[in-house]
Amino acid sequence: MLEADRIYNFNPGPAAMPLEVLKEAQAEFLNFNKSGMSIVEISHRAKAYDEVHNAAKADILELMNLSADEYEVMFIQGGASLQFAMVPLNFATADKKGYYALSGQFAEKAYDEANILGVGEVAASTKEEKYVRVPRQSEIKLADKAAYLHICMNNTIFGTEYHYVPETNGIPLIADMSSDMLSRPLNFNKFSLIYAGVQKNLGPAGVVLVVAKKSFVENSPTTLPTMLRYNTFYKKNSLYNTPPAFCIYMVGKVAKWLKSMGGLSKMHELNKKKAALVYDAIDGSNGFYRGHAEKDSRSLMNVTFRLPSEDLEKKFVAEALENKLGGVKGHRSVGGMRASIYNAMPYEGCERLADFMNKFRKENA
Amino acid sequence: MLEADRIYNFNPGPAAMPLEVLKEAQAEFLNFNKSGMSIVEISHRAKAYDEVHNAAKADILELMNLSADEYEVMFIQGGASLQFAMVPLNFATADKKGYYALSGQFAEKAYDEANILGVGEVAASTKEEKYVRVPRQSEIKLADKAAYLHICMNNTIFGTEYHYVPETNGIPLIADMSSDMLSRPLNFNKFSLIYAGVQKNLGPAGVVLVVAKKSFVENSPTTLPTMLRYNTFYKKNSLYNTPPAFCIYMVGKVAKWLKSMGGLSKMHELNKKKAALVYDAIDGSNGFYRGHAEKDSRSLMNVTFRLPSEDLEKKFVAEALENKLGGVKGHRSVGGMRASIYNAMPYEGCERLADFMNKFRKENA
Repeated sequence: MLEADRIYNFNPGPAAMPLEVLKEAQAEFLNFNKSGMSIVEISHRAKAYDEVHNAAKADILELMNLSADEYEVMFIQGGASLQFAMVPLNFATADKKGYYALSGQFAEKAYDEANILGVGEVAASTKEEKYVRVPRQSEIKLADKAAYLHICMNNTIFGTEYHYVPETNGIPLIADMSSDMLSRPLNFNKFSLIYAGVQKNLGPAGVVLVVAKKSFVENSPTTLPTMLRYNTFYKKNSLYNTPPAFCIYMVGKVAKWLKSMGGLSKMHELNKKKAALVYDAIDGSNGFYRGHAEKDSRSLMNVTFRLPSEDLEKKFVAEALENKLGGVKGHRSVGGMRASIYNAMPYEGCERLADFMNKFRKENA
Repeated sequence: MLEADRIYNFNPGPAAMPLEVLKEAQAEFLNFNKSGMSIVEISHRAKAYDEVHNAAKADILELMNLSADEYEVMFIQGGASLQFAMVPLNFATADKKGYYALSGQFAEKAYDEANILGVGEVAASTKEEKYVRVPRQSEIKLADKAAYLHICMNNTIFGTEYHYVPETNGIPLIADMSSDMLSRPLNFNKFSLIYAGVQKNLGPAGVVLVVAKKSFVENSPTTLPTMLRYNTFYKKNSLYNTPPAFCIYMVGKVAKWLKSMGGLSKMHELNKKKAALVYDAIDGSNGFYRGHAEKDSRSLMNVTFRLPSEDLEKKFVAEALENKLGGVKGHRSVGGMRASIYNAMPYEGCERLADFMNKFRKENA
């Protein structure tokens, strides 16, 4: 049930968080764990914080079914945008370039940062098709001496998502999972490094969750500034300097919430049901709603669609908000609507959106 | 009055925040400004967030008595440690090096990052004196073609602080003010760039406040990754990518609180009175407490002192906590005690600490 003064929040990020998590954080905001201080006031070298930090790391690995012997969880600031630079800085050279599969605006931005350094190559692109789908396995071309393949797993703006993990034949696979991290089980072992700005699926903006093979990040170029080397974070348990403690604390709470919901398999089932409600409203609209993404690339996280006219689109946004459905306006590069239905969006929110879509269509078709 | 379940928090950072600010944030945590969402769930492109962001910037400039025509307030992630790298990356070259006044561990770390890039020089150092004071004006040596002079305004670990602004004769002055930002009025116009990790005086860990002359940051090397260029933040109002919204929101609240307290002059008066309480307890102890800093470099923010033995120091920490005085243990490189008494530490907290110090001395001398 929606609480009286809250709305269903379909924003693409920062985005809805589980209400239980928000309430817990609120209740203990002045006195964390009997410390007599707020979580925002506690030293990052104190035991009370250490427990929060390490539990978040352990819970994330457990959810991903990864071994702590093999994988490291790191918390890095600067957003995915800084990762776009850290990846080529740490792993690519002019001789051994990073390869990028272009599937949307953020994949392009990652490639652009490699290009600033002169170390990027395109492995595949669906740009000419206006990013209505992600590249297919057969389209991804890698040189033998590629430093890595970089993919953007879910394309927030275009509403597309990989439903397979690309095979790279031994070349390290790196993925930006900012908008679908921990939304479904994957064979995460196939990835050398995964990063995700947490503000979509995992917590408040201000930290990037990086999960990487230890062997992949244990050595970083010593010509790089300390804070741009992955091994600074790996070797210091992400405590080389003061971490963004509140964000990590909230991510830890979300990880516990995910466990309480049954983990990634259960979350995936729920996310499929939620997305089906909205996609069914599109597919059953006789063309009134037109989905942007091709069906086999449809994202479970961001549903993008257009209406017959821009006037109707404006009306849709306004009436949706009157119905306590907020943040449904799409990105300007696609236009129309976008319903972001991350883990924290309850089933009822999607039901209410689908009902509203059906009602709106009948009134305006 | 200390609330029943809270303690006086003398941690060096993350550190105490104004209780009024914490309570306000707590009260509106589930529904910010009638948006129906938490501040952590609101889009950074939404009007409700924009107002928070821009008010924080304006209030900070007002507190610093700086003109918005001339200075820009930026919010950057990565901590002061990333600033240590961004400063030389943006401003120094092998031909025109950055000059560093070494006054403590963080000043050294800033210099180290310039050295990784091969662009750092020492302008002055008090290392041989164990950093018991900051360099004097007469000791600071700058080449004519220095790119800048970098100083660390307050040295958290050693408990020293500049009580003058170095004259650089036209060479840009850059200061790390992480541990005394907005604690006193200064002629901020003398600085080309000031940065401060907010977790000591200004808010929750996770954002650095950067205040810079617009003319100094409007052009950045295009060979740098986008997120390492100051002009990315300047030209995009610190909204090139998702900002650490919760931290900025809290910094904004602290800025409003500072204004309600009467601004930096009033805060300075209060900070001097608070520090005097603790320094008087040291100076009147007949050598039982020995201050680390020389008197004319004493910090108003971090009071560092030793006791006659390490056993007594351990006892002091334990009994202080029983008296609801937390976080008084010093940094390992100095040893002993450190009382961090930033803006948010109330006068009563310092009174209580001084009373405790006097009582402890009588019982253990």
